[in-house]
Amino acid sequence: MKYSSKMERCSLSPMRKFNKDAARAEERGVKIYHLNIGQPDILTPPAFFDAVRHFSEPVLSYAPSNGLNALLDAVRRYYARLGVTLARDDILAATGGSEALMMVLSSILDDGDEIVIPEPFYPNYYTFTTLTGAKIRPLTTCPEEGYRYAVRERVEACINERTRAILITNPGNPTGAVITPEELHMMLDIAREHELFIICDEVYREFVYGGEPLLSALQFDGYEENLVVIDSVSKRFSACGARVGMVISKNPTLMGHALKWCQGRLSSPTLEQLASVALYELDESYFDAVRTEYKHRRDVMLAKLRAIPGVVCAEPRGAFYVMAALPVDDTEKFQRWLLNDFEDQGETLMYAFGAPFYATPGKGVNEVRMAYVLEAKELERAMDILAKAIEQYNAR
Amino acid sequence: MKYSSKMERCSLSPMRKFNKDAARAEERGVKIYHLNIGQPDILTPPAFFDAVRHFSEPVLSYAPSNGLNALLDAVRRYYARLGVTLARDDILAATGGSEALMMVLSSILDDGDEIVIPEPFYPNYYTFTTLTGAKIRPLTTCPEEGYRYAVRERVEACINERTRAILITNPGNPTGAVITPEELHMMLDIAREHELFIICDEVYREFVYGGEPLLSALQFDGYEENLVVIDSVSKRFSACGARVGMVISKNPTLMGHALKWCQGRLSSPTLEQLASVALYELDESYFDAVRTEYKHRRDVMLAKLRAIPGVVCAEPRGAFYVMAALPVDDTEKFQRWLLNDFEDQGETLMYAFGAPFYATPGKGVNEVRMAYVLEAKELERAMDILAKAIEQYNAR
Repeated sequence: MKYSSKMERCSLSPMRKFNKDAARAEERGVKIYHLNIGQPDILTPPAFFDAVRHFSEPVLSYAPSNGLNALLDAVRRYYARLGVTLARDDILAATGGSEALMMVLSSILDDGDEIVIPEPFYPNYYTFTTLTGAKIRPLTTCPEEGYRYAVRERVEACINERTRAILITNPGNPTGAVITPEELHMMLDIAREHELFIICDEVYREFVYGGEPLLSALQFDGYEENLVVIDSVSKRFSACGARVGMVISKNPTLMGHALKWCQGRLSSPTLEQLASVALYELDESYFDAVRTEYKHRRDVMLAKLRAIPGVVCAEPRGAFYVMAALPVDDTEKFQRWLLNDFEDQGETLMYAFGAPFYATPGKGVNEVRMAYVLEAKELERAMDILAKAIEQYNAR
Repeated sequence: MKYSSKMERCSLSPMRKFNKDAARAEERGVKIYHLNIGQPDILTPPAFFDAVRHFSEPVLSYAPSNGLNALLDAVRRYYARLGVTLARDDILAATGGSEALMMVLSSILDDGDEIVIPEPFYPNYYTFTTLTGAKIRPLTTCPEEGYRYAVRERVEACINERTRAILITNPGNPTGAVITPEELHMMLDIAREHELFIICDEVYREFVYGGEPLLSALQFDGYEENLVVIDSVSKRFSACGARVGMVISKNPTLMGHALKWCQGRLSSPTLEQLASVALYELDESYFDAVRTEYKHRRDVMLAKLRAIPGVVCAEPRGAFYVMAALPVDDTEKFQRWLLNDFEDQGETLMYAFGAPFYATPGKGVNEVRMAYVLEAKELERAMDILAKAIEQYNAR
C-alpha cells in the first residue's frame, strides 16, 4: 500500500512518543513527574463547568461553522480590553489553537513554499506545515542570546521568493522568550515589506513575568492584510481538554479560505464554545493569581536546574517552559533510560526531548523542554531526580 | 498575497452557502424549513447530558491523542454486537466523522493521486481530497438505477495507476442508496485486488428501512490492510454538536500515520468523548424507535414529492436524505429566489443544491438533496411550499 509522502515525513509527537514506556513504568508502580506536556494542574475555572451543566437544549446541534456568536462576542470583549476592535467576521472558532493553525497554514501554503519559523519551535508546527507540502525555513536562535530572533538582518536572510509567511510564538514555546513591542512592530514591518503573512501564536499571552503589559500583534494598525493571530483558551484558562481556539485576522480573503475548512468539518463542538464564554467573563484578578503562581514555579525550577553541573539554560520570561541543554549525549536516549532503567525511590520524570524542536539537523540533541506546570515542591523533587539521573546515566 | 492553490480550488459548503440569505429572510419574519442540513430534531439521549453534568474532575485535561480508553472500549462493545472484534489500537477517536476522514485522506493521498468516489457524493469529500493535492475520479450513477455503483466493470473502469483508494458512503449521503452484503463484499475484493484502500463511511449504519440487518464492512475478514471505516455519533445518536467520530482500521501502518495527525492536534475534546460512552450504552430499542420515525418521514416526504409534476427521484433506502431532480433550470438560482423573492404565508424552504454533489461538470444542476430531519407534518408543509414555489418560479 502507498501512503502520503507528506505524512511519511511527519513524526509522532516528541511529547507523546514515550507514552507507552511511561505506561509500562507506571504499571511497575513508578511515579512519573510529567514535565513533557503543557498540561497545567491549575484548576479550570468552575464557571466553565457551571455553564456546561446548565446547557438545557434538548438537541445537541451543530454550532455555526465559524463559531457561536456568543463566543465570538466574548472574544471581541476580551480583545477590546487590550485596545483591539474586532468584528465577528474577524474571528473563526476552531477546535483548539492546533486546528486554528492547520486551517491557516492550509489556506496559505502550497507545495514548495516556505515559512520562516524561529527555532527551537513547537514541533507540531512541523506536522502542520509538512501536510501542506511546504517547508520550514528555520531562523536559528541560541540560549546564550535568550533565543532572540527579532533581528532584521537575520529574519531577512531567511526570506526568498518561495517564502509565504513568518510564524512566531510569543511568549515562546519552548523557549519562554518574550519579544518587546518594538521588536514585534519590526517583525510586522518585515512581513508587510515582503508581502508575507505573519502568523502570531499568542496562546501564552497572559504568562509574562517581567511586569510587561499584555501584548498582541493586533494592537498595531496597518498590518490587516498580513497579520493572523492564533489564540486559545487551553493555557489561558487551564482548559486544555476543551479544545477551543481561534483564528483572528482582518484579511477577508484569508478568512474566506479558512472558512472553507470550517465548513468542511461542519463545526467545532457546541458545549465547549458555550462554556468558554464564561471563561472570557473572568476578571483580571484570575490572571494575576495564575501568573504569580507560574512565576514562583519558574523561579523554583530554574534555581534547582541551574545548580545541576553542566546544565545550560536561559531564563524564560514567559509561557511555562524551560528549554535547557543537559550534560548527556542524547536526551531521547536519556528519556528512554529514565523510563526503563532508572528510578529514584520509585520515581522518575519525563520531558520533551530537544531535537524535534529544531528543523536544522543535529541541533537540540542534548536539549530538553520542561513544562513548569506542577506545584513548586513537585518541581523541586523532579529537579533532584534529574540531577541524580544525569549523574547515574553518565557513570554507566 | 498568495494563497494555497489547493484551498483556492475548494468552495464553501453548498449546505451553508445561503446562510446569510437565510438570516436576512428570517429577519424579515419568514419561517424557513431547513432541509439543507442533516441536523435531526430527534432528541439527544438524556444520558449524554447526564454524563456531562456528572463530570467532576477539577481540571479539564487533554484526552489521550488516540481517544479516551472508555470511549474506545464502548466502541469496541458496540462493534462486538455486530460480530466485529476490535482492539483499542484499531480505533482512533476524532472530532467528528469529518476529522476522521481528513486524517485518513491526509495519510493516504499525495499530489496527483486519485480516489474513486461514486457521484453524487457528500460535497465535503471534495474539500478533504483537494487539500491533500489529490483528485476525485467520479463513478457516475443515476436515479433511474437507484444510484447503483457496485458494478465491477464500472468501478474498475475508474481505476488507473494513480488510484489509491475507493470511498463509499453506505447508507448513502445524498442518495439514500444501500448496498447489499454481496455488493459490499465485491467492492472489498476490487480494492484488495488492485491494492487500494477502501474507505467506508458508515455513519448512517442504523438508518436502513427495508428490514436489513446492520451492515459494516468490518464484518468481512481478509481486508485488514485495505479497509478503513469512518464512524460517528452525530447521526446515530442525534448528537451532531458533540463532534465525536472515529477511524477504524486493522492496518497498523495507516493507523500509525493517522496517529501523527491526532498527536499534532493534541486531542479531541474530553467531555464529549466521556459523554459519548453513555450513548453507546443505549440498547437496540433506541435505534428501533428512531428508525421507525425516519421511515415514516421518508414515506410522507416521498409521497408528497413524487406528486409534484416533473420531479424525478429514487426511493432512498437508507440514511435520511432524498436526492431529486426538480423541474427548474438551476437549483442554486432557485434557492436564491426561494430565500429572497418568495414566500408562501410567510414561509419558505432550504435544501442543498445539487451541482456540488458531483465532480463531473454540468451534472446535478437541476437536482437537490433534502434531509427528512423534521417532523412529518413539517415535511408535508415544506413539500407543499416546494410545489407552489416551482410553479411560481417557472411562471415568472
